[in-house]
Amino acid sequence: MGNLTKTVFIFGDKKAEGNAEMKNLLGSKGANLAEMNLLGIPVPPGFTITTEMCKIYLEEGHDKLISIIKNEVTASIKFIEERTGTRFSDAENPCFVSVRSGSRASMPGMMDTILNLGINENIVEGLIKKTNNARFVWDSYRRFIQMYGSVVMNVRAEAGDFADPFEEILEKEKKQKCYQSDNDFNAEDLKNISKSFKQLVKKSTGKDFPNDPWEQLWGAVTAVFESWMNERAVYYRELNNLPQEWGTAVNVQAMVFGNMGQNSATGVAFTRDASTGEKTFNGEFLINAQGEDVVAGTRTPRQITTEGSRRWASLSGIGEDIRCRDFPSLEEMMPEIYQELAGCAQMLELNFKDMQDIEFTVQEGKLWILQTRNGKRTGAGMVKMAVDMLHENLLDEKTALLRVDPKRLDELLHPIFDQDEIIKACCIAQGLPASPGASSGRIVFFTEDAQVWSSKGENVILVRMETSPEDLKGMVAAQGILTARGGMTSHAAVVARGMGKCCIAGAESLKIDYKQRTIQTENLTLKEGDWISLDGSTGKIYKGKLKTSEGQLSVDFEKLMNLADQHARLKVRSNADTPMDVMTALRFGAKGIGLCRTEHMFFDDDKIMAMREMILADNEAGRRKALAKLLPMQRKDFEDIFRLMNGLPVNIRLLDPPLHEFVPHDEKIQKELADELGIPHEIIKKKIESLYEFNPMMGHRGCRLGTTYPEISEMQTAAILEAALHIKYEGIESLPEIMIPLTGTVEEMQIQKNIINQTAEKIFEQYDDRIPYLLGTMIEVPRAALIADKIAEHAEFFSFGTNDLTQMTYGYSRDDSGKFLPMYLEKSILKHDPFQVLDQQGVGQLITMAVQKGKAGRPNLKIGICGEHGGEPSSVEFCHNEGLNYVSCSPYRVPIARLAAAHAAINEENNRSITSRQNASKAICFENYHF
Amino acid sequence: MGNLTKTVFIFGDKKAEGNAEMKNLLGSKGANLAEMNLLGIPVPPGFTITTEMCKIYLEEGHDKLISIIKNEVTASIKFIEERTGTRFSDAENPCFVSVRSGSRASMPGMMDTILNLGINENIVEGLIKKTNNARFVWDSYRRFIQMYGSVVMNVRAEAGDFADPFEEILEKEKKQKCYQSDNDFNAEDLKNISKSFKQLVKKSTGKDFPNDPWEQLWGAVTAVFESWMNERAVYYRELNNLPQEWGTAVNVQAMVFGNMGQNSATGVAFTRDASTGEKTFNGEFLINAQGEDVVAGTRTPRQITTEGSRRWASLSGIGEDIRCRDFPSLEEMMPEIYQELAGCAQMLELNFKDMQDIEFTVQEGKLWILQTRNGKRTGAGMVKMAVDMLHENLLDEKTALLRVDPKRLDELLHPIFDQDEIIKACCIAQGLPASPGASSGRIVFFTEDAQVWSSKGENVILVRMETSPEDLKGMVAAQGILTARGGMTSHAAVVARGMGKCCIAGAESLKIDYKQRTIQTENLTLKEGDWISLDGSTGKIYKGKLKTSEGQLSVDFEKLMNLADQHARLKVRSNADTPMDVMTALRFGAKGIGLCRTEHMFFDDDKIMAMREMILADNEAGRRKALAKLLPMQRKDFEDIFRLMNGLPVNIRLLDPPLHEFVPHDEKIQKELADELGIPHEIIKKKIESLYEFNPMMGHRGCRLGTTYPEISEMQTAAILEAALHIKYEGIESLPEIMIPLTGTVEEMQIQKNIINQTAEKIFEQYDDRIPYLLGTMIEVPRAALIADKIAEHAEFFSFGTNDLTQMTYGYSRDDSGKFLPMYLEKSILKHDPFQVLDQQGVGQLITMAVQKGKAGRPNLKIGICGEHGGEPSSVEFCHNEGLNYVSCSPYRVPIARLAAAHAAINEENNRSITSRQNASKAICFENYHF
Repeated sequence: MGNLTKTVFIFGDKKAEGNAEMKNLLGSKGANLAEMNLLGIPVPPGFTITTEMCKIYLEEGHDKLISIIKNEVTASIKFIEERTGTRFSDAENPCFVSVRSGSRASMPGMMDTILNLGINENIVEGLIKKTNNARFVWDSYRRFIQMYGSVVMNVRAEAGDFADPFEEILEKEKKQKCYQSDNDFNAEDLKNISKSFKQLVKKSTGKDFPNDPWEQLWGAVTAVFESWMNERAVYYRELNNLPQEWGTAVNVQAMVFGNMGQNSATGVAFTRDASTGEKTFNGEFLINAQGEDVVAGTRTPRQITTEGSRRWASLSGIGEDIRCRDFPSLEEMMPEIYQELAGCAQMLELNFKDMQDIEFTVQEGKLWILQTRNGKRTGAGMVKMAVDMLHENLLDEKTALLRVDPKRLDELLHPIFDQDEIIKACCIAQGLPASPGASSGRIVFFTEDAQVWSSKGENVILVRMETSPEDLKGMVAAQGILTARGGMTSHAAVVARGMGKCCIAGAESLKIDYKQRTIQTENLTLKEGDWISLDGSTGKIYKGKLKTSEGQLSVDFEKLMNLADQHARLKVRSNADTPMDVMTALRFGAKGIGLCRTEHMFFDDDKIMAMREMILADNEAGRRKALAKLLPMQRKDFEDIFRLMNGLPVNIRLLDPPLHEFVPHDEKIQKELADELGIPHEIIKKKIESLYEFNPMMGHRGCRLGTTYPEISEMQTAAILEAALHIKYEGIESLPEIMIPLTGTVEEMQIQKNIINQTAEKIFEQYDDRIPYLLGTMIEVPRAALIADKIAEHAEFFSFGTNDLTQMTYGYSRDDSGKFLPMYLEKSILKHDPFQVLDQQGVGQLITMAVQKGKAGRPNLKIGICGEHGGEPSSVEFCHNEGLNYVSCSPYRVPIARLAAAHAAINEENNRSITSRQNASKAICFENYHF
Repeated sequence: MGNLTKTVFIFGDKKAEGNAEMKNLLGSKGANLAEMNLLGIPVPPGFTITTEMCKIYLEEGHDKLISIIKNEVTASIKFIEERTGTRFSDAENPCFVSVRSGSRASMPGMMDTILNLGINENIVEGLIKKTNNARFVWDSYRRFIQMYGSVVMNVRAEAGDFADPFEEILEKEKKQKCYQSDNDFNAEDLKNISKSFKQLVKKSTGKDFPNDPWEQLWGAVTAVFESWMNERAVYYRELNNLPQEWGTAVNVQAMVFGNMGQNSATGVAFTRDASTGEKTFNGEFLINAQGEDVVAGTRTPRQITTEGSRRWASLSGIGEDIRCRDFPSLEEMMPEIYQELAGCAQMLELNFKDMQDIEFTVQEGKLWILQTRNGKRTGAGMVKMAVDMLHENLLDEKTALLRVDPKRLDELLHPIFDQDEIIKACCIAQGLPASPGASSGRIVFFTEDAQVWSSKGENVILVRMETSPEDLKGMVAAQGILTARGGMTSHAAVVARGMGKCCIAGAESLKIDYKQRTIQTENLTLKEGDWISLDGSTGKIYKGKLKTSEGQLSVDFEKLMNLADQHARLKVRSNADTPMDVMTALRFGAKGIGLCRTEHMFFDDDKIMAMREMILADNEAGRRKALAKLLPMQRKDFEDIFRLMNGLPVNIRLLDPPLHEFVPHDEKIQKELADELGIPHEIIKKKIESLYEFNPMMGHRGCRLGTTYPEISEMQTAAILEAALHIKYEGIESLPEIMIPLTGTVEEMQIQKNIINQTAEKIFEQYDDRIPYLLGTMIEVPRAALIADKIAEHAEFFSFGTNDLTQMTYGYSRDDSGKFLPMYLEKSILKHDPFQVLDQQGVGQLITMAVQKGKAGRPNLKIGICGEHGGEPSSVEFCHNEGLNYVSCSPYRVPIARLAAAHAAINEENNRSITSRQNASKAICFENYHF
């Protein structure tokens, strides 16, 4: 594909030597600039120096490179001069160019752009004469010195210094003159600043700032090539598995200006509505302005279309006459330009098969398209556009699915704050975005208060240091949950996500005082009853009450989900412990329950008492007595769930948490318990104390409980299978899967298997009827993964408990990781929170091993995952690639998982069909490509 | 080797068809019975049915077996009849035989022995006539019914029943007759009991008890073969990796009786002194008695040798005349028999090349050797015998080394209770044998009391719920440590082992009341000041004061250790944090420090204050100020250690434990601290509360501290290298190894590496001198093992922290495992406590992986282990086989590790040279072989 003899490819005037297929040689930007020309789009003329030249520069050095490209570059500059009617390095009619990098894949932030190249003091003088705008010209010059000085000549902030040295000069000057903003500088100021900038460059580098435009050009070109190997870029490629040997191309392009008078303009246009996804051409522009002015907000931009302009005016309360006078549309002001722009936009969307975000400039009555890229959009917009484009036959099913980022579906499922509200609001602290959604409510600190206030119709936010199962009712009553401790998988976070309730966890900067009933931040104190607002998608906590809008499931959303299911191989289940969870899960399309945590069932009033009686019993007989009380209650819970699931598989995990979680640690409640059970308080207190553990996460829990107290496993098995038999008589099928938690040895698996199977046989005999059921285990202790072949001999299924597996593989307590994880993420010691995004390098090795060994031990082993990762797209893809049967996640993440599962299957297929091409489409799937 | 046509091998009269080499065909016992005959030892005649017949029985069944062996067995019984002058199945002159199993390797408890086979009611009558001893005959008969009934006919205790049904009948009868013991039964009673026994058999099995001696014989033979596949035996073989296809042989041998009158006797003899190891023939016997009588203690046994008899008499205060009259030696009473016995003993020792424990019977003036086996001995005896036998040229070096069980060396290194004291003592509870040794002292509950009482010359035992670093001084002052919580690797256990101090941990049945200053057991209450005694080798806690004797390092011990070092490939280092530890380590032969935990250094009065100041500082500047105070103190600690180690490597681990361990949790001490630091108590309290963690073991510790507070790593690096430079000026070399704890990501390793190397360069520049040092990491988080290749790129050494690695691989908190580990061990869910014996199946996989990956990442990577397992023989062998460079253990375990390292090397060599032989000598290395 490479063309070693040709080193430079020119484009301009709707002609080009390259095309969109030549990304390897010209980079993405260069190839697309060529392609735009071939499409007939008016693009400022320019040329691309190939990626091969990057290799030559890096391997053979500066002189060798220049000797190879000099002639072609000189000729190409001439080409630009001819097309623009200007002359490079000429003071009277100067030609300015931009110089930009561009490799095969987008590498944001790898290297800045250099604009206005080709200017010097001579040219400044000439240009002032030509434009009669000294301020504009000096400003252009000082901007060029700043850009070139920092990017090419490396005059940057030293480690330890805070500010960019150029900015420091600007600040100093502004202070001296008592100016408010950069806009206040006049031409004279900017001239002086330019001088200071050049002195700074000389002082920092020992070199004079180059005046010769050619010297500037060669410097910029080699700096771009050099930047391919800078630390940031190398790191970015390592992070994204991009080959170091690709190299970058260099794009040199004529500058155009939208601020050349009333027949000049600049703006942005979108082929569809980025917010709703509707197919409506729209955008904003300014007359006689530069690109920056549109976004800076100093002048009110106008609408491109007349329809858009009218809608805007009506929303702003501006009458049609005033609109026509002061805010006419581009369509009205420059109808021909508008037609040309609309035509280009349509052509670009058809060509790139995606909504385009287009930057344009009109220079003295001539339209130039500077850039087009796939436009950013809301989650709702993303869904609508994908489904619309599928119906328009613009996309095939797979591409339409790949167009929707699963993570963005969250926005559709949870309420969100109005964007306007957020801008005005006062953010008082930042925690972990533990469960998405937005909610406002009055601060309460205790479960009882949450219930009482809520029953009076108040919206409340439950604020706790951390939550425990005892706070469950308060969490149900509250609009949102805020904790000062705990991580993304803390109790509060997990339960809230299950409820689809907004939660911010680990907001460590908040000082919560239960006694005073206050929250303190550095600057203010909030008390019980004060309003706060939580944005669970960003982790931001706002003072006061913010307006929210509810997420709605559109018809398009349903269509997309059904399409996803058709393409996915992985089944998606949900973690659900209550009938409410189960209904949500079904609504979001779960195909089974992947994890039903029985412990959450024990916190109801009637159950907790029997549970406590069981825990405090002295002997097996006492425990059995209490368990006999629990049995019918648990059975009813399971009946309710089986009935709702109506034949879909329900995976039930036997009792897992350490027993101390079920007993009261409060002296007063202990005493009440003592009275109720008729046991002296002293004895209850001692028993509860004896349950204390230093590291409960690695203590007496999981199947260690079922092994110590087999009667618990017996009771739970009985409750499950009796429930299944009972609803069978109602004519409803059920598919129970009984899951043993925290298995680490074959012997534990054997013992629990025997208990369960023996109990099952007893019940089947008693009922003279049978229920098919599966018996399996969590894989959540590293050792279980290491001996998975042996365990699989006794287990019919595995379910990876990746929360615990992550905890133990890293040795990170998820409840305490708030102490160091944020710092680790900030310092890039970890790329992601491993409790959110599965650590494929470490934890993933154990999963791979367990899958291979498990299937060796039992070829038809059923394998799933039920950790938090089951709803995270990259982790879902990993599960797909490892050949798992299903993922299970909290109900509100089911749609995300369904779409991610489809993506995984499509990506796998695509990768198979293009393994020979290094430039995998997957790598740039959600990246915007700039050019 | 097998001889399929020959099914039975006879022996007797100093002749035999088999020999010692034929263990595969005849089993160990059968081959040795043959060998004894060939040696000329008088052994009751008999025969062995081959292991091939076991296979035939198991594959082709009972009838097939009998058809094959019937003729040869009949002929062999005739052989016994001829040699003994008796007749099988004859009422007047009956021949009785024993029937025993015997496979290639010893399988203790697989199957009981059947004695007196060949008896029935007819024969009983005949025998009474012949012996005139009705009680003896009926007793023999009822014993036979009991033995045969239970072993062959499976009349045993049902699950749920407590007592053996035969024993129940005996108990009932005894109660009815108001007898004290079985000895009170008369002949009539025993006759009735025999009848009841037969009824029991009929009732239980539906079958009559067999009267026909031939039927008895076939039943016993097939029962032995059947027993090869019983659950216990299959499990034992699985556990010990013995092939299921070996099969067992059956040994049938004529019975002899030592209770046939005054010219009959029975006894045991030892070729060397089992207690001291001295080469002195010794033993005990009784005239006219059965084997059981010698051990039963109802009659005082006499000494075999006259010398032994005299020594015994003098110890017992018995004059020579009375001794001669009432307690003459065998040497004096039966001089010819004695000479024959002594000759046999010598021959057997020479033949088996080990101290022999010989059972003999004299029947009517004729000596029979019934059994010989390698004798049990004390640790001291083991060492002396091995060294003596080496000097006697009885053993080569390797065999002499293999003769000493490394675990038994403990006895030589720690004080032990006198055996007599233990028998009399009252054991009040049992905990985990956390640190060996024996000690008595008065109960104290607080560190201060331990110090005060100890300073007054009192011996004290520090009794705590659990210990923390704050108790260190109390532990130093105490004779022993007892905790109610925590496991084998709890703080108390680890520190006590390091000090060589006796410790029992996790005695969960003790209720400790700090307020009342009492310990409660089920039956008694002990208070402060009461005497208790701890046996740290068994975990038993005794009431009162027990006499101890100090362990002494003999010359033989030193010889053995030096020999071990010559054969070992693994180097042995010691974990040591203080100069005292270091001296002990060197005394026991450590070749370096494998783990110097810097945190223990911070608990001295002056250091803890600076440490607390550092922890409570608000910012880096405050921390640096406090660290500057710590630097010279730490430097001095390292200087002291380097000086003692004199050029041997010293591996220093940077700060590891969570910071909350260093701050006071007691309100009073917090207030004192507040005064001293001039910070309000409220602030100190809040700061300390903020250090709280749910699972500190997986919290903010290890290199997570060094990453959050790089200044700590800097200070420690400076202290280490400055110390090395300082003692260099004293002319002493040092070899520091700087170790990063708890590494789990490459990024952590990189960051710490940079901090350490940069600090080193600064110091070297400052001193204008350099010190060679190594930089490496602990591998103690499972993830570190999984990405060891990447980590090794930055680490010059690995040290496996198997304590933490075990915790996280199993998900067992070592501090809490006392809640379920004892039950797991009892139920055989775990074969060993994984914190004591390395789990090769699970944790071992991670080690293997990390070694392979680590060496892939850096071929010359130095690898060691510094967990508790470094001093446990089977774990040491694993480390040897994995190719590690060294193991490091607590000082008192260094000799054990040195010997275990030698064993590992020798076993490896032996296994290489006998891979073709399945019967590896290693498997039976410390097993007694019975026959």
